[in-house]
Amino acid sequence: MKSSIQREHGGGQRKSVLVYGIHPVLEKLRAAPGDVIEVLVLRGSRGPALRKVEQAARQERCRISEIDARGLDALTQGANHQGVAARLAPFTYRSFEALLAASHPAAHDCVLFLDGVVDPRNLGGILRTCEAMGVGRIVLPKDRAAGVTAAVTKASAGAVHHLDLYRVSNLSRALAALRDRGYWVVGLDAQGEKPACDLVYPEKLAVVMGGEERGIRPLIRRSCDYLVSIPMNGRVGSLNVSVAWGMFVYELARQRAPLTFSPTNA
Amino acid sequence: MKSSIQREHGGGQRKSVLVYGIHPVLEKLRAAPGDVIEVLVLRGSRGPALRKVEQAARQERCRISEIDARGLDALTQGANHQGVAARLAPFTYRSFEALLAASHPAAHDCVLFLDGVVDPRNLGGILRTCEAMGVGRIVLPKDRAAGVTAAVTKASAGAVHHLDLYRVSNLSRALAALRDRGYWVVGLDAQGEKPACDLVYPEKLAVVMGGEERGIRPLIRRSCDYLVSIPMNGRVGSLNVSVAWGMFVYELARQRAPLTFSPTNA
Repeated sequence: MKSSIQREHGGGQRKSVLVYGIHPVLEKLRAAPGDVIEVLVLRGSRGPALRKVEQAARQERCRISEIDARGLDALTQGANHQGVAARLAPFTYRSFEALLAASHPAAHDCVLFLDGVVDPRNLGGILRTCEAMGVGRIVLPKDRAAGVTAAVTKASAGAVHHLDLYRVSNLSRALAALRDRGYWVVGLDAQGEKPACDLVYPEKLAVVMGGEERGIRPLIRRSCDYLVSIPMNGRVGSLNVSVAWGMFVYELARQRAPLTFSPTNA
Repeated sequence: MKSSIQREHGGGQRKSVLVYGIHPVLEKLRAAPGDVIEVLVLRGSRGPALRKVEQAARQERCRISEIDARGLDALTQGANHQGVAARLAPFTYRSFEALLAASHPAAHDCVLFLDGVVDPRNLGGILRTCEAMGVGRIVLPKDRAAGVTAAVTKASAGAVHHLDLYRVSNLSRALAALRDRGYWVVGLDAQGEKPACDLVYPEKLAVVMGGEERGIRPLIRRSCDYLVSIPMNGRVGSLNVSVAWGMFVYELARQRAPLTFSPTNA
């Protein structure tokens, strides 16, 4: 299965992006209907789920086209499309300058920086967790890292449409700009010298995670005020990057929500 | 991509199981060489990683066969095999009676029960986290749930070979048997009434997690002494089951390892 499905749309330079699967298409129609160029539905009988997609598309006045099974299979390169796909305007990253310019509440801010996550499933999984846990802004590097593709969107269970994503060419400069604005930079890394819960996290926080193989790059590592890790008890293993992020953001939420998270005896 | 690759081996009733990919095959050769019937290596030139696999196989006196690219592609059904596969004796689950009979240290025990996780990647991800965090025993139901297949083994990054897995036909009876032996049963569920960190976990703990779609079944839910959840802050999202398990086991490790986990000001 290819991780990215992009095709030339019309004769122009712009490429459209494809999402497929009932949930991802519905999510896109709900969250950003203006991005949907066309919804492609499998020709023939419809189950209730597909009818729901059609209804949502009609409500948003999106163009709906029928497509045969072979065409849809080819378009999605054999992925599990569940009878529906949507052509989207290319994913729009936000401008990092806008992030810097925006005034964010001093309390409980967290921006995630991903230094080279390459697996679309891992990126999608991280974004799904971000949305569920309320981390709304994620910064990706332009090179040698996964960007937002159909596979990422699907793996994120649609969460990508509810997040602000930024793409920068120089991650360490971006971190420096945030630090100038009062943010502390914490790197989460297997080599981190402190357990993640040994730190009381500051209000304005930028978290850096490295990619699947090499972790945080040395230059970025030096940009971190603290390096923390998740303590492990196993004999051979390591943690998947998306699971490690889940553990970290759980710790952050635990610290930041004393009302629901205060430990009391059962 | 099929989630399970099993083939008839010889003329007998027993089926052999296939694992593929450099890391999973190496891991199997290290952890349980006795299970390896044969290592299949791509015919032709070898990179250093493949040579390492061959060396390990030779050391363990495993049979090594060459196979051409087409044969290996067919055997692994187009998966990313990295030039190597191994035929294994079928995965051996341990006997749950042995778990009950074994004397386990009273301190810090945790047995994980999975009530219907069906996605092999999720099961593999959960097992990888189990191994990394030191939860060594996992109980699966015999029906309507993923078992250990090649895809699960790969997704677990080989962790499956370092764990004790049990398969029972009646999960709630198995939970009752553990409860009779002094274990408390905690269910982790989106509907859980308490945040996961509001509970101080007992020394002898059985944790139940539900499957991807329906969560813990009502009968099993009633077997739980407590139901806990991971508090979320998002607008639309839910947590992936493997990420939720990561968060829970992080909380457990945090509580159980006061020396490394005690929160101190940074």
